[in-house]
Amino acid sequence: MSSTLGQIFKISTWGESHGVGVGVNIDGCPPLLEITQEDIQKELDRRRPGQSDIVTPRKEGDVCEILSGVFEGKTLGSPIGILVRNQDQRPSSYTEMKDKYRPSHADYTYDAKYGIRAWHGGGRASARETISRVAAAAVAKKVIDSICPGIEVIAYVKSIKHLQANVDPNTVKFDDVESNIVRTGDPAMVEPMIDLIKQVRGEGNSVGGVVECVIRNCPAGLGAPVFDKLEAELAKAMMSIPATKGFEIGSGFDGTQLTGAEHNDYFYMEDDKVRTKTNNSGGIQGGISNGENIIFRVAFKPTATIMTEQPTIDTDHKETELKGRGRHDACVLPRAVPMVEAMSYLILVDHILRQRAQMGSV
Amino acid sequence: MSSTLGQIFKISTWGESHGVGVGVNIDGCPPLLEITQEDIQKELDRRRPGQSDIVTPRKEGDVCEILSGVFEGKTLGSPIGILVRNQDQRPSSYTEMKDKYRPSHADYTYDAKYGIRAWHGGGRASARETISRVAAAAVAKKVIDSICPGIEVIAYVKSIKHLQANVDPNTVKFDDVESNIVRTGDPAMVEPMIDLIKQVRGEGNSVGGVVECVIRNCPAGLGAPVFDKLEAELAKAMMSIPATKGFEIGSGFDGTQLTGAEHNDYFYMEDDKVRTKTNNSGGIQGGISNGENIIFRVAFKPTATIMTEQPTIDTDHKETELKGRGRHDACVLPRAVPMVEAMSYLILVDHILRQRAQMGSV
Amino acid sequence: MSSTLGQIFKISTWGESHGVGVGVNIDGCPPLLEITQEDIQKELDRRRPGQSDIVTPRKEGDVCEILSGVFEGKTLGSPIGILVRNQDQRPSSYTEMKDKYRPSHADYTYDAKYGIRAWHGGGRASARETISRVAAAAVAKKVIDSICPGIEVIAYVKSIKHLQANVDPNTVKFDDVESNIVRTGDPAMVEPMIDLIKQVRGEGNSVGGVVECVIRNCPAGLGAPVFDKLEAELAKAMMSIPATKGFEIGSGFDGTQLTGAEHNDYFYMEDDKVRTKTNNSGGIQGGISNGENIIFRVAFKPTATIMTEQPTIDTDHKETELKGRGRHDACVLPRAVPMVEAMSYLILVDHILRQRAQMGSV
Amino acid sequence: MSSTLGQIFKISTWGESHGVGVGVNIDGCPPLLEITQEDIQKELDRRRPGQSDIVTPRKEGDVCEILSGVFEGKTLGSPIGILVRNQDQRPSSYTEMKDKYRPSHADYTYDAKYGIRAWHGGGRASARETISRVAAAAVAKKVIDSICPGIEVIAYVKSIKHLQANVDPNTVKFDDVESNIVRTGDPAMVEPMIDLIKQVRGEGNSVGGVVECVIRNCPAGLGAPVFDKLEAELAKAMMSIPATKGFEIGSGFDGTQLTGAEHNDYFYMEDDKVRTKTNNSGGIQGGISNGENIIFRVAFKPTATIMTEQPTIDTDHKETELKGRGRHDACVLPRAVPMVEAMSYLILVDHILRQRAQMGSV
Repeated sequence: MSSTLGQIFKISTWGESHGVGVGVNIDGCPPLLEITQEDIQKELDRRRPGQSDIVTPRKEGDVCEILSGVFEGKTLGSPIGILVRNQDQRPSSYTEMKDKYRPSHADYTYDAKYGIRAWHGGGRASARETISRVAAAAVAKKVIDSICPGIEVIAYVKSIKHLQANVDPNTVKFDDVESNIVRTGDPAMVEPMIDLIKQVRGEGNSVGGVVECVIRNCPAGLGAPVFDKLEAELAKAMMSIPATKGFEIGSGFDGTQLTGAEHNDYFYMEDDKVRTKTNNSGGIQGGISNGENIIFRVAFKPTATIMTEQPTIDTDHKETELKGRGRHDACVLPRAVPMVEAMSYLILVDHILRQRAQMGSV
Repeated sequence: MSSTLGQIFKISTWGESHGVGVGVNIDGCPPLLEITQEDIQKELDRRRPGQSDIVTPRKEGDVCEILSGVFEGKTLGSPIGILVRNQDQRPSSYTEMKDKYRPSHADYTYDAKYGIRAWHGGGRASARETISRVAAAAVAKKVIDSICPGIEVIAYVKSIKHLQANVDPNTVKFDDVESNIVRTGDPAMVEPMIDLIKQVRGEGNSVGGVVECVIRNCPAGLGAPVFDKLEAELAKAMMSIPATKGFEIGSGFDGTQLTGAEHNDYFYMEDDKVRTKTNNSGGIQGGISNGENIIFRVAFKPTATIMTEQPTIDTDHKETELKGRGRHDACVLPRAVPMVEAMSYLILVDHILRQRAQMGSV
Repeated sequence: MSSTLGQIFKISTWGESHGVGVGVNIDGCPPLLEITQEDIQKELDRRRPGQSDIVTPRKEGDVCEILSGVFEGKTLGSPIGILVRNQDQRPSSYTEMKDKYRPSHADYTYDAKYGIRAWHGGGRASARETISRVAAAAVAKKVIDSICPGIEVIAYVKSIKHLQANVDPNTVKFDDVESNIVRTGDPAMVEPMIDLIKQVRGEGNSVGGVVECVIRNCPAGLGAPVFDKLEAELAKAMMSIPATKGFEIGSGFDGTQLTGAEHNDYFYMEDDKVRTKTNNSGGIQGGISNGENIIFRVAFKPTATIMTEQPTIDTDHKETELKGRGRHDACVLPRAVPMVEAMSYLILVDHILRQRAQMGSV
Repeated sequence: MSSTLGQIFKISTWGESHGVGVGVNIDGCPPLLEITQEDIQKELDRRRPGQSDIVTPRKEGDVCEILSGVFEGKTLGSPIGILVRNQDQRPSSYTEMKDKYRPSHADYTYDAKYGIRAWHGGGRASARETISRVAAAAVAKKVIDSICPGIEVIAYVKSIKHLQANVDPNTVKFDDVESNIVRTGDPAMVEPMIDLIKQVRGEGNSVGGVVECVIRNCPAGLGAPVFDKLEAELAKAMMSIPATKGFEIGSGFDGTQLTGAEHNDYFYMEDDKVRTKTNNSGGIQGGISNGENIIFRVAFKPTATIMTEQPTIDTDHKETELKGRGRHDACVLPRAVPMVEAMSYLILVDHILRQRAQMGSV
């Protein structure tokens, strides 16, 4: 029951990194939306390994197949099954992991929980699992566009280690981000960030960073008290992405340095639209969107797989050493950008449909 | 459907700040646990206004009544309804809010969503709603103690504005925190924090801060891939508490400044127990607890209600000004501590029961 | 988690027959609906004991109190808590049940499941629990009326033991049913049914029967493949009412005596409306309403509590005898009618809101 | 959200009859169970068309592929995806259905609900959808066997039209049922039933009937008040199977002809086991299993597809005629038997895991 997300646009995912494949079933999608395999493939290609020379060179084609729910190019309203078969598997790269727990990976905890673990390449804990999310989000985006045209979700690399990008979330364009392989919105930071990634990779090391995401043109009224506040749902969604360590919205942790008089967002009218002069709230108040841009940040730790010898234990609980093998990202941030967007779409679509259920319109 | 939390230990809450009362229904609680009204009351008293001279002086008795599910002092296994009637209401303090939107409150967004709003005191968006959570958590704690005795959940004020407490999460004691009215674990910070709160209150202003929480003696194996990772569930739970702006676990946002070699938590054996030399993971790996202390932090913004004139708009969307009235906390942090603990218990209990369902034991 | 019903209009109930009270929390109700305590009370009075001389003479006032979610006479969109306190309890009538299991009651199974049982009067297994359903349904009816005005739900006693009422579900009127204390739609059967109930009651015995229910003016399109077919949801809802033993829709069990050529409902046009010449489908095809009247029947067993000495066992598993005490219905059918209607409303409202979520309108 | 079933052992299904395939994702399955493709295939073969000369001659191989969740022959505890690709499709048989609504099928209601319909062969409303259920149930059976060894679920044809089988649910053996192609437990009825099916098929007509099911050796304590009573869950599960019109448990509708004194099941001790002298309750009291055999019946209407010209309307709402084509069962009962068993397993497994969650053991 833990691979299920959403109340109305309900997705259920499956798949290990080295089994037959990964996939998703989407239950509750509205009918009559035009969707093709290409619509989904396009998003998967943004997430895919091997897309540039700063990400893992694994050659995963990640070709998706729509199994059901689409007929003559349109959604039927019945469940949409999507399957991506695994390819380019090299379980031999993982032989050592059969008996040794990789530090800061899920090897030990999976064994502790389940008493069994698909040690060929990370199993369910592999980032490969996020294919299902990205595929489902491609469908979610179609739904959102049909009900709330104009909503934009743009994520970008805000920082890699100490390198801070200077990006205005209110004006950054999708193409600005997508035009560079590190997926930052700050042209001045593209080269330094690429250089840093290559440098740590050369050292067999890794780095992390922060992805910032903005949701623009979101109507006021999405999200719901008390447990399903929009920021709470986004927080869960983001913290479910592998390697995340933190989530903050609006002023975030830095907001604790302000007084209430400094922090409060004062309302005013801009033409006929209710606006706030500042946006420390990050576009959400009382768990409900207020029509301002929704802005949040997600911290990703440095990749756990590094190419140096590290102390660890084996499955018999003997102390030993382990050196990373296989083809891994020295920095997950560029590929995390579409994951953050995907999870945003999945939360938005569910709350848009919930709004329609309870209020009759969005 | 947004006031419901949990898959097995499922709680459903209700209540506005100035209606008849607030409450909770707990569905799925194991039977035969000893529980009394006093067990719940004790926790409510920690959350209650008026408990010290740095929190709001409202005199809410917050007396709970167990409506069902307990028979001759023991849980029946059937739903446990709990009601706390509202008292000491002064709706006259809120008259102005009927027509004006308080900045950085939920007044505007509730109107935008629902087209109606209980303007007497915050309605469903009032922190009074958290009574239901604290009451349910008192029951959750009983369940946890019966299945996993030894689990400790201790939250404390880590910072108020710029004042940072120095607390070791591995050794801090509940009584250390509870012994001071600001609920910090650092004796040296008690007076400075109290002074700061009193100062900003005197200025009609407010401050925020960070609550840190540690869960000790948690067995390995709790939490579940992929969406219901333990940190994801905690993140949602914490970000659903009013006034929260950020959540981080383990190394959190600062962890992005480390390389993988620095960040990885190396396994070793301590007697027969699997341990990690560092705990940047914050006790959770791959969404599953690893037996180390679970450590996370939650950012609370400065209280939105301040006693100075602020620009805003009215319900007719005319620009106007508004001055806070009523009796409010100039700093919610001391009262937020039991809320953070409560939400931790609610997530833990559900995952303990889920573990028992899937694995047969915890 | 078993006292929760509905995906969007989600209700969570609590309460034992001899505790503080019974109640319900309704999460997901649309805002801005006018609702008063009287609207709910009116429905509770139809369910209440003591309403006529053929039902139990217990004097339960069953006065409901709205705890939340309604402000100045309108729903807020936030959870609606409703509480009915218990009255006129005579636990002494149940003293013997503390140690002896009543035949065909839930005493033994509750002990087998939970290891504890509220023996004062049936606890959670008491029909008193249905108060929560009827109260929630009164709210559901308001929602339905606001979205699909014209929908009528009329249940009536179709048979008591061998006495069969002759009622046309397509034309029967609510007032026809409500005008007689046995709640049948056949005037010719009122006296015979009353006489039969009084006769078996005089013998310390009991009888059961069948309630038929018709839902008229239901729009085509409600219900959803594959597990949440409208008839499947209705079946669960009805079979969750205490004392039910069977559910059938349209042609039901008798339909198995027909051939396909006889059973098929042929489509034709009546003015602009799609109609079927027969209605063996009972208004639902493929799990989705087709616009014809939805007609189903629910079997209720004879009341288990009878006033004669019966063999049974005690809690120590020794064989013994037990004679029913207390004030019970010799026939639950008249009071079951509003319960069947209530469960119909609860299923309908949820599917109407689900339809609105997925399709945008109903 | 309507293709999802279960609280803990949660299945999510997809697939139309003439798309790529049908399948299921099982979320929440315990780890370490041995399961192979053959275990699932064996059950699918019992449901499959073409298995005998009284069922549809369609040659659907129904070969299943396990996509995930099983590693080296054992369940991982992560989601188990299963896919069965469609074969032997003849959409040309369905060309006429593109524009005409088949009587008593779901063609019209799908159009009314979704505004679109996969008219190639029934789409989501095809009985082909039940493949997903049978596959999931094969896994459920493994879970049940590991926790509650000894539980037997045996369904059999109780009647076809007027032909009534004489079967003792307390002693009937699985092999008795499986040994004849009509799947009745009464040897004397095998030939008459086969003859009747062949006769109506020869006439281009169809027949329905009743499947009875017994669950033996079920421990006391499964099922839960108030909405998720075990019989309520079974009722929903059965009424979600295509072509079902009724469900009854224990004494069922006939039980309404008895008085309470006749209907009550008196407890007695048989050695150390609590027993009841009769079993009008059908093994469930107060929604909870009592340890007696659980016995229920499900009514299936005569197959809607018949080979004679029938009046109907087209998608433009003009009156027209339609003759069934394609290869269909003249009687679904023999193939319904494994579907009834499958749904029983799916309800049982979920309640067994729920019991383990709440009580710690079953």
